[in-house]
Amino acid sequence: MGLTDAFSTGMRVAVLYSGGKDSNYALYWALEKGLDVRFLVTMVSENEESYMYHVPNVHLTELQARALGIPLVKGFTEGRKEEEVEDLKRVLEGLKVEGIVAGALASRYQRERIERVAEELGLKTFAPAWGRDPVEYMRELVRLGFDIVFVGVSAYGLDEGWLGRRVNEEAIRELEKLRDKYGIHVAGEGGEFETFVRDMPYFRARVVFDEVERIWDGCTGSGKLVVKAAHLEPKGGTR
Amino acid sequence: MGLTDAFSTGMRVAVLYSGGKDSNYALYWALEKGLDVRFLVTMVSENEESYMYHVPNVHLTELQARALGIPLVKGFTEGRKEEEVEDLKRVLEGLKVEGIVAGALASRYQRERIERVAEELGLKTFAPAWGRDPVEYMRELVRLGFDIVFVGVSAYGLDEGWLGRRVNEEAIRELEKLRDKYGIHVAGEGGEFETFVRDMPYFRARVVFDEVERIWDGCTGSGKLVVKAAHLEPKGGTR
Repeated sequence: MGLTDAFSTGMRVAVLYSGGKDSNYALYWALEKGLDVRFLVTMVSENEESYMYHVPNVHLTELQARALGIPLVKGFTEGRKEEEVEDLKRVLEGLKVEGIVAGALASRYQRERIERVAEELGLKTFAPAWGRDPVEYMRELVRLGFDIVFVGVSAYGLDEGWLGRRVNEEAIRELEKLRDKYGIHVAGEGGEFETFVRDMPYFRARVVFDEVERIWDGCTGSGKLVVKAAHLEPKGGTR
Repeated sequence: MGLTDAFSTGMRVAVLYSGGKDSNYALYWALEKGLDVRFLVTMVSENEESYMYHVPNVHLTELQARALGIPLVKGFTEGRKEEEVEDLKRVLEGLKVEGIVAGALASRYQRERIERVAEELGLKTFAPAWGRDPVEYMRELVRLGFDIVFVGVSAYGLDEGWLGRRVNEEAIRELEKLRDKYGIHVAGEGGEFETFVRDMPYFRARVVFDEVERIWDGCTGSGKLVVKAAHLEPKGGTR
């Protein structure tokens, strides 16, 4: 995907935003490069789970958008792979932007589809986290002051204790051990875990969790941290 | 404001959307006229109340947007009157639309400001509920099958019992009596009450309230229905 150059400074872009570490890094990168981030775009799947109002994690992106002061566009999709990209295309097609910025993408397949949509719409694409060394990338996030928590785990070796844990140097070292032992991808690119960013340098307020619940499925060895209540807390004078 | 004509069929528009009866009627009207509704736009005020995640009514517009299958754009504003219109302008400026559709507006002042923003952006404006006879308008909403509930009241004569009540023929008759007695505007244009639409013909699913709380302030004689949990229920084969 494209790299920024003198021509992209001030370029109007939308950031594909799920609230996790990768989309927040993509956003951070775009703002650092001087791109004009006009919208965060989130696609909400109409699967059974997210259909319910009381499964609230999906609403947390709104708190993040408010912390950032950037308008949030929520598109809705039936959640079937084929349609999802078409639904995303229809949303992007309505935005006056010249480019889209994406976090690390789950797969080459997904990446190619997003690139195709962008090409059809005449949009530049940027995926700053793509192809980064996982350990170095995770360390950079910590160093930049990202407050990242594990909100979903789904891999042998990652137990319930990881839910709600912060990504810090120690956690990264443990992930490296689990990589050596079980083949886990340290940045979770194989779907091993999902994260949520409570704070990063461009947030004007930090997200505080007031009530969480751990849901663990012993059969599949996977779990989720459901955030039932949260609020924003102003950060004061930084940035 | 403009009326639709042959040229506006298929026009790409954004509907200013708060979730109440007026913005839903505006949306209904736009869809009936064959406008191409690309986005619902909601401005969220950063006042203390809405800053909290657990004051959830503001999240209900998302359920409505999902029921409609129309992307929702949430813009954020400090909530001061002057800035709010500028923040709205910045959001609208990023959308590829040719017009905006608004519900009944709270005041001539607000209407003029929105018209000015639209003019500056070269957008057509439509306000189908503007200038309608209140009683006839309310009756039409009921006849069209809108499921409207009172979620806020703030006027002498409207007590706690109105919170959560449906707008039906009987309620309209009572509002007429209160109009004759206390001067209440039957469609609530003076801020006498706020409504939420759980269903209307273009919803593919209806909003069901699972848990509500009535909050009443005896000093000001005003109250709110806080919806703490809600979900969507598919409607089946209609439309």
